[in-house]
Amino acid sequence: MVTQTVDLRSDTVTKPTETMRAAMAAAEVDDDVLGYDPTAFRLETEMAKIMGKEAALFVPSGTMGNLISVLVHCDIRGSEVILGHNSHIHIYENGGISTIGGVHPRTVKNNNDGTMDLDLIEAVIRDPRGELVYPTTRLICLENSHANCGGRCLTVEYTDRVGEIAKKHGLKLHIDGARIFNASVALGVPVDRLVQAADSVSVCLSKGVGAPVGSVIVGSESFITKARRLRKTLGGGMRQVGILCAGALVALHENVAKLEGDHKKAKTLAEGLNQIKALRVDTEMVETNILYIHILEGSTITAEKLCKKLEEHGILVMRESSSSIRIVLHHQISASDVQYTVSCFQKALTGAPDENGH
Amino acid sequence: MVTQTVDLRSDTVTKPTETMRAAMAAAEVDDDVLGYDPTAFRLETEMAKIMGKEAALFVPSGTMGNLISVLVHCDIRGSEVILGHNSHIHIYENGGISTIGGVHPRTVKNNNDGTMDLDLIEAVIRDPRGELVYPTTRLICLENSHANCGGRCLTVEYTDRVGEIAKKHGLKLHIDGARIFNASVALGVPVDRLVQAADSVSVCLSKGVGAPVGSVIVGSESFITKARRLRKTLGGGMRQVGILCAGALVALHENVAKLEGDHKKAKTLAEGLNQIKALRVDTEMVETNILYIHILEGSTITAEKLCKKLEEHGILVMRESSSSIRIVLHHQISASDVQYTVSCFQKALTGAPDENGH
Amino acid sequence: MVTQTVDLRSDTVTKPTETMRAAMAAAEVDDDVLGYDPTAFRLETEMAKIMGKEAALFVPSGTMGNLISVLVHCDIRGSEVILGHNSHIHIYENGGISTIGGVHPRTVKNNNDGTMDLDLIEAVIRDPRGELVYPTTRLICLENSHANCGGRCLTVEYTDRVGEIAKKHGLKLHIDGARIFNASVALGVPVDRLVQAADSVSVCLSKGVGAPVGSVIVGSESFITKARRLRKTLGGGMRQVGILCAGALVALHENVAKLEGDHKKAKTLAEGLNQIKALRVDTEMVETNILYIHILEGSTITAEKLCKKLEEHGILVMRESSSSIRIVLHHQISASDVQYTVSCFQKALTGAPDENGH
Amino acid sequence: MVTQTVDLRSDTVTKPTETMRAAMAAAEVDDDVLGYDPTAFRLETEMAKIMGKEAALFVPSGTMGNLISVLVHCDIRGSEVILGHNSHIHIYENGGISTIGGVHPRTVKNNNDGTMDLDLIEAVIRDPRGELVYPTTRLICLENSHANCGGRCLTVEYTDRVGEIAKKHGLKLHIDGARIFNASVALGVPVDRLVQAADSVSVCLSKGVGAPVGSVIVGSESFITKARRLRKTLGGGMRQVGILCAGALVALHENVAKLEGDHKKAKTLAEGLNQIKALRVDTEMVETNILYIHILEGSTITAEKLCKKLEEHGILVMRESSSSIRIVLHHQISASDVQYTVSCFQKALTGAPDENGH
Repeated sequence: MVTQTVDLRSDTVTKPTETMRAAMAAAEVDDDVLGYDPTAFRLETEMAKIMGKEAALFVPSGTMGNLISVLVHCDIRGSEVILGHNSHIHIYENGGISTIGGVHPRTVKNNNDGTMDLDLIEAVIRDPRGELVYPTTRLICLENSHANCGGRCLTVEYTDRVGEIAKKHGLKLHIDGARIFNASVALGVPVDRLVQAADSVSVCLSKGVGAPVGSVIVGSESFITKARRLRKTLGGGMRQVGILCAGALVALHENVAKLEGDHKKAKTLAEGLNQIKALRVDTEMVETNILYIHILEGSTITAEKLCKKLEEHGILVMRESSSSIRIVLHHQISASDVQYTVSCFQKALTGAPDENGH
Repeated sequence: MVTQTVDLRSDTVTKPTETMRAAMAAAEVDDDVLGYDPTAFRLETEMAKIMGKEAALFVPSGTMGNLISVLVHCDIRGSEVILGHNSHIHIYENGGISTIGGVHPRTVKNNNDGTMDLDLIEAVIRDPRGELVYPTTRLICLENSHANCGGRCLTVEYTDRVGEIAKKHGLKLHIDGARIFNASVALGVPVDRLVQAADSVSVCLSKGVGAPVGSVIVGSESFITKARRLRKTLGGGMRQVGILCAGALVALHENVAKLEGDHKKAKTLAEGLNQIKALRVDTEMVETNILYIHILEGSTITAEKLCKKLEEHGILVMRESSSSIRIVLHHQISASDVQYTVSCFQKALTGAPDENGH
Repeated sequence: MVTQTVDLRSDTVTKPTETMRAAMAAAEVDDDVLGYDPTAFRLETEMAKIMGKEAALFVPSGTMGNLISVLVHCDIRGSEVILGHNSHIHIYENGGISTIGGVHPRTVKNNNDGTMDLDLIEAVIRDPRGELVYPTTRLICLENSHANCGGRCLTVEYTDRVGEIAKKHGLKLHIDGARIFNASVALGVPVDRLVQAADSVSVCLSKGVGAPVGSVIVGSESFITKARRLRKTLGGGMRQVGILCAGALVALHENVAKLEGDHKKAKTLAEGLNQIKALRVDTEMVETNILYIHILEGSTITAEKLCKKLEEHGILVMRESSSSIRIVLHHQISASDVQYTVSCFQKALTGAPDENGH
Repeated sequence: MVTQTVDLRSDTVTKPTETMRAAMAAAEVDDDVLGYDPTAFRLETEMAKIMGKEAALFVPSGTMGNLISVLVHCDIRGSEVILGHNSHIHIYENGGISTIGGVHPRTVKNNNDGTMDLDLIEAVIRDPRGELVYPTTRLICLENSHANCGGRCLTVEYTDRVGEIAKKHGLKLHIDGARIFNASVALGVPVDRLVQAADSVSVCLSKGVGAPVGSVIVGSESFITKARRLRKTLGGGMRQVGILCAGALVALHENVAKLEGDHKKAKTLAEGLNQIKALRVDTEMVETNILYIHILEGSTITAEKLCKKLEEHGILVMRESSSSIRIVLHHQISASDVQYTVSCFQKALTGAPDENGH
């Protein structure tokens, strides 16, 4: 019998808090398609300011935020975007930038820390002299923190240098900042400084920040004007959307301060799990709220079976490959949940029956 | 000084009621991307049943509902869709089916009642013998009630006959049912019977039904499976979306019963305005909650100026052309609002100062 | 036994003449992708001059010429093109502008003479104030002569007025001039004057002009630069293409002068066929080399059967509908072929055995 | 003064021979869009047989051949193709599969020999369980010989194993066989055996084979039927195309036998150039008709300047990077041209004036 559920599959699983629910119930709203919803407007204004950009736009998801951003920067047929081979946009967004937007992706190898080597980025920018057979490079995308690279952070120095390359070649820079607040907190750098070099950023509020629904994209006025129209084309224009934005505003105010705690819990969990014989967690790599657990060779258990056993104890995690598991911390995981999780891994791996008879 | 606001621009402007707000605040939610949100699941299950289809999917807007439906039916490159020259999909959705989906539209003239002549529909279905130079016809779209044709309704007989043509030629039939409940109520036909011939229907809950946000598309299990994936591609997958679905469920339970009243108020308003000398409203055409007001030739006022004057009285309407105005009724317009509206039109046209000094 | 073949299906069926063959065999050629083929360059230079435009580009087909032109003018995602509901681009080019190019077509009714009413054109240009839900109108397309409208010609006055509308609204004007030389000859207007208002024209050399393969598009230098690149994208860049261009140059020099004769033969044929009891040909409508033959109601023969009977006599024509047939004249049809064709129609319709025993 | 021109930029630069010109002049032709051109039909039939496939289609270029092939295999929206990061389709075809076709490319690292590691290919095939966020893998593309990897050849064993992976996962296999005859000759494997595992192959006839224009794609009957229609959409349908096909047929008959000689000349040239102090040519890598020349570090000359100096001697080559040059041999390069080329490199690098006073 499962006595408690500890959902570590993603930081998207958080439930809205009572204050969020109250704010949503009381939200001042209006038709955000015919005009502007006041609460959406408030969230967008605040986010633009936080991110240090001229304007902002609420969108239903991080996927739409990235899709719109890439498509606005690459609005001319025949565009190419440079992005990490392991980036969320390339791997987990249905290839929408091509299949919906007709943009040609050119990937550069992501290092373990989420960076792409600067010289490799520059090497794949298309030579205008070869334009008869080349698409036109128009955009570079970064991801910070980088989900598939263990939630690691791109520094402000790195980001600035990519921004310089972009500027030098007349390209735009977009940051998939689904977890940019995590990066900002982990690096100890103000978030507006961290994305200063970017022409656009998509920020997810329904991940670590804990809002029930939504992302925000920020950029110049003209970028957001185009983005608003494309949001309508894609079907992301919502009517009394202030309901969602009210929740997101509370999340923003309540939970950004909790991210540091999430990172600490991630570290604690990583260290705890790394002491289990059959597992290896590269604790140095745990910079934010994501950790990858590797089942050591020689172990008889597969990731699939381990996940199943953990589920019997109420621990929900994400299988990454046949020998690795992904865990994401968030504000609704307590210190005792962390301890319980370690103990459940131990039980699952040793096969020892737990106190509840599993 | 405006003493009251009567917003007749669209039925999308309604504010959530207290019961909706309470339901949203209390909604049971979960991550609808990683798995299923229970409240979304409840809404989808209920809507599928109401519409008499196997399955349903909540989407952020009617535009996304139509876009997904057309793209799922036309998932092979080289598809053509037959639709009304005056249909919402063709005129008001950014051309997304082509610009995002690569589907080629083939329009047939909409009659005043929203129908397309059956023989004209059949005439534009592509002859498979000419396929070397032809796209492949894959879909017919109807709109019921038809917004641009004055909110008029397609009968069940007409819909069935279009369904037969579709079937005969191996095509799918999609109904843009943004206001299908209005049509059902006006025709006195159960909504599931009305859409029986359709392979898919998109139903808007944030129009007359009064939900703050969202539409639902219904169809076969396999259609919805594909739609769910495409929703993710477009960025319409939302996390704890049960918040919105809870509001939509209340709207569905509370407000469908009020649509008949909206239609009566529309009729009353139409008759009232038609008695004003400078205006003509074809009262026979007012079958649901939409009416078009024509400024008679010889009148010195333009629609633009009339709208502005009305706004001074707190009456918000939509300019349609230089000599016509659109009004849409909804459950937050009272009988006295209707009377007030008539009187404001009179004042605006006669130029007589009203009691409040305008 | 068929004693001669008279191929009237299209003016695309002409065989290269001996002089064309000799020119192709002797053509000076080079790699037109790595640099420029000298004969292609000669053809392009000559065509640009004839059409009164800055530059020109050889393409493998009229379909590619139109596709490139529309896509270059509509190179930004979210574009709409205004074109005739009966135009070749809309009906006979696989919907490529949408299915390949993502451009949204907005059709206006073609009158019998190939025109679209000027006020109807202007009425469908999108109001920039409604841009959140509208695609952006970027292009108007005309077709001259208009194949589906009986080969009728747009006058220079009409074309100029459409050009003015385009200019007034910041739109481009493209002319599908597959048979623009026919129109020029029929109207007695120099071809450069006829297309003066156009930003681009696609001209087919393998129709009445009689070249074995190819079309040319003309426009500004910057238009052609973009077109050259898009031609490569579509796979229309060819290496020693001077072979084809040599044939096209001879065709241009030899056959434009013969178009007037084609038109006369078309008229003669139309008059001859119109005297046959069971047929009606609107001889007034025959302005160029195309005619449509209608089988009168009451006749027992279908177009399909009539085509088959004609084929027994070596007469090849195109079935247009169940009761109509299309015929296109060209320089390889002689006056006696015209007489023979009339007599074969008579035989086919009266059922009388011909001299050869059919 | 340039006494002779040796054009080594590509094997696309060959001029048609007298026999090709005679064949083109005499070609039997017909309208290949309305029906079939007899010479095109002859070429297609012969090529299908040579390649061991059911059917074939003539297309204006290798780019169109690849574009059509990828798009036919990926005809459903949301498709992903696996291909080499250095492949011609990915680098030199304008990104057309995405920008025109909406297909999402997933690249795998090309090794120096043109292969992609089998386990890496298999690793990027999308897990159907993750389909909500994944595009659908539908195709693997190989390139043989591999232009950007020095013209090296994929063995029949390797190709078969990729074919097995494709089959195991329900994918199609396309081979960009622009120079498949070079690979066949170099490997000593019949060409039909070499492409046996492929569902489609595009073969270029205007490269080493020496035809003035054109490529052929081969595959199943149903593949070619779809390809024929897509060729029309793209504008690749040509009328009396037999002119070009006649030249291509002669090229096929005359020049495949000469490819072995091209390879030997490439080897000789590579060895000759490798003896020049400032240069390095990996002679082991020269398997076919392509060679890459690297300017050694420490040399004061750039590739750009070297190319310019060579051009003064009539030697045309392709600059690849700031320190490397690409050369491609073909049947119009003689043994003495090879010697002359070596001597010109020497002169250009030593700066010694040549006998002609340069």
